[in-house]
Amino acid sequence: MSTQSETAETNRLEAFSDGVFAIAITLLVLELKSPELEDGERLWPALRHEWPQFAAYLTSFAILGIMWVNHHSMFRQIKRADRGLMFLNLLLLLWTTLLPFPTSLFAEHLRDESINSNVAAAVYSANLTLAAIAFSAIWWHVLRNHLVDHDMTKAQMRTSLLRYSIGTVIYGACIGLSFISAQMTLLVVFLLALYYGFEQVRTRA
Amino acid sequence: MSTQSETAETNRLEAFSDGVFAIAITLLVLELKSPELEDGERLWPALRHEWPQFAAYLTSFAILGIMWVNHHSMFRQIKRADRGLMFLNLLLLLWTTLLPFPTSLFAEHLRDESINSNVAAAVYSANLTLAAIAFSAIWWHVLRNHLVDHDMTKAQMRTSLLRYSIGTVIYGACIGLSFISAQMTLLVVFLLALYYGFEQVRTRA
Amino acid sequence: MSTQSETAETNRLEAFSDGVFAIAITLLVLELKSPELEDGERLWPALRHEWPQFAAYLTSFAILGIMWVNHHSMFRQIKRADRGLMFLNLLLLLWTTLLPFPTSLFAEHLRDESINSNVAAAVYSANLTLAAIAFSAIWWHVLRNHLVDHDMTKAQMRTSLLRYSIGTVIYGACIGLSFISAQMTLLVVFLLALYYGFEQVRTRA
Amino acid sequence: MSTQSETAETNRLEAFSDGVFAIAITLLVLELKSPELEDGERLWPALRHEWPQFAAYLTSFAILGIMWVNHHSMFRQIKRADRGLMFLNLLLLLWTTLLPFPTSLFAEHLRDESINSNVAAAVYSANLTLAAIAFSAIWWHVLRNHLVDHDMTKAQMRTSLLRYSIGTVIYGACIGLSFISAQMTLLVVFLLALYYGFEQVRTRA
Repeated sequence: MSTQSETAETNRLEAFSDGVFAIAITLLVLELKSPELEDGERLWPALRHEWPQFAAYLTSFAILGIMWVNHHSMFRQIKRADRGLMFLNLLLLLWTTLLPFPTSLFAEHLRDESINSNVAAAVYSANLTLAAIAFSAIWWHVLRNHLVDHDMTKAQMRTSLLRYSIGTVIYGACIGLSFISAQMTLLVVFLLALYYGFEQVRTRA
Repeated sequence: MSTQSETAETNRLEAFSDGVFAIAITLLVLELKSPELEDGERLWPALRHEWPQFAAYLTSFAILGIMWVNHHSMFRQIKRADRGLMFLNLLLLLWTTLLPFPTSLFAEHLRDESINSNVAAAVYSANLTLAAIAFSAIWWHVLRNHLVDHDMTKAQMRTSLLRYSIGTVIYGACIGLSFISAQMTLLVVFLLALYYGFEQVRTRA
Repeated sequence: MSTQSETAETNRLEAFSDGVFAIAITLLVLELKSPELEDGERLWPALRHEWPQFAAYLTSFAILGIMWVNHHSMFRQIKRADRGLMFLNLLLLLWTTLLPFPTSLFAEHLRDESINSNVAAAVYSANLTLAAIAFSAIWWHVLRNHLVDHDMTKAQMRTSLLRYSIGTVIYGACIGLSFISAQMTLLVVFLLALYYGFEQVRTRA
Repeated sequence: MSTQSETAETNRLEAFSDGVFAIAITLLVLELKSPELEDGERLWPALRHEWPQFAAYLTSFAILGIMWVNHHSMFRQIKRADRGLMFLNLLLLLWTTLLPFPTSLFAEHLRDESINSNVAAAVYSANLTLAAIAFSAIWWHVLRNHLVDHDMTKAQMRTSLLRYSIGTVIYGACIGLSFISAQMTLLVVFLLALYYGFEQVRTRA
């Protein structure tokens, strides 16, 4: 009975997380604003001029989608949740729910010619880095407390931990890249999301 | 056990999608704005003057409702999810969560006498077309990878694929219709949603 | 197997509806605006002056809460869902998701000395009446198509249908009351929600 | 069968509550506004100047997270739900969904040098106190009506009730503290959330 109650706990943890991911990914649309037109101004050029909004929307959607898929994969391997896992998961959800804010900041300043575009890109990258760290912390906690639902060899554990650490390093590097070019940072982050998507399709399907 | 884990995956995929549909359909209300009244202006005529807002709200609600019902029917026939399905489903959710934006654009410009009303209608129709393409892609992927939970004859597969392709063609035609009349486009899209609703009641109940 | 698939359908229908109710009830808070203060103006009197916002928030929260409880009770008695039920349920959710709009309209115009306060109250009451009609229609459809999970006598069916019809009549009467006094309408609607709450505790607990 | 139906009721109650918690915690981000910059103004100092927004965001996130964990723990011990429990739970959800409003009020007035900062802090603390009272009321109702899923000694019941009462007293004291210092109130509330988090990890893991 104790086991059953632990399993229920994992289910409700996943349901809550799914809810937060689903809401965060849907709220992104609220940051898209209709262009305000002058008399006689045409809508299509005005929409095209708003491309940073759409690029940032698409990128954050892809990232949150991948994060949800990752979360999903990770929790399929977890057989029970302790309180430590619940709080580390809340930390991950903190960075997840925050993402619409730097997304809107990034879109707004992407074309600024000042340092502001770089700062907005760095804040965005920092948010992603913090989320990657939270993912690593969850996995490290899960391994250390034997919460996985199958036996892993030491080598498998090292490999899986390494995978998450690489994410942290890459997004951390994006903070640096932000100060070279905000637009390149957005492109790299978007391509990374696509790459992670396809790589997972290939290695785990 | 492998099968059970695959089934769980489908469940969480459906739960996540349900969440996104439920949130997108509920967020539509945030695009409805109270009319700002001048001193002595009366509320009822001001509300009636906002009819494009309500017409666009109702149409998008009907479309998202039908999409949810369709998604529901489709996934009842799917017995397991692979990674490809997860990413195609995310693509569908991308167009689902985006819909409140063109809805608000459409409502705002429906009565413009310039080309802007046509552009707004075309953007709206393009969103629906992209969603229809994503539905077709999911079904095509599901059939090709034998993810359905029952045997289908070649004829049944062709028929079901054809059904989805027709949706793509019809919404694609609405992009063209947009440049003839924005208001007619809204009406046609609304009637299509009603038709799809009733047609499903009839053929699958 | 057919039965199992039908049951799953009811579950997903309930989960989707729960999601919509949960989102609509939580979105109400977005209509609460911080008062904009002049230099030296004090916050507490400004907040107290915004009482119509809070009264409308509380009333709509109570109504959506009761509606969720009602929906819950009703669907506990339904053993399977057909397509007709799905579309009538979508109709109910339409009025549910719309409610934040008339709530904000009501709060904004509650103290207007013109006919506008009555119009806002009437729009609000009309929304509630349409939701009550949708509830009746669902129950009527369920009884007519034998979707309940237990046998009911003719008398029980009549009694249960009557209960829902009374709701429709009462909220319909509130549309009339709106043209006498907007503030009284808000009070009556709030008391009705409390009454329905307690009455259900008594008769079905 | 009656028991099964009661259990289902608890599940749907938990699912609905999870939805509301997930939405409320995610909506907090909508209160974060991009700073509006003058020509040539730099983004980073403007963001740093908005620290009350981020501090209030983080605090409310932590509180809603802890409340969800608490709700979770409490309902794991509840074996069936009656109507009284449903309505007390709705009362708790009322204070949960309301929290984004005082959060935004608190952030906006945290640095006011007038009494307004104290009033905003007191409103925020009052919201938390009302939530703590609702938690106590739920637990008291559950114990009185034997809705828990295991036997508790009188001593255990007293201890558990005392735990919830202490929360009410502490948050009540924060209302008083608000009139000494708004910023100290925010800090204390944040530290309390962290303390409750760690304390639960220790005593119940």
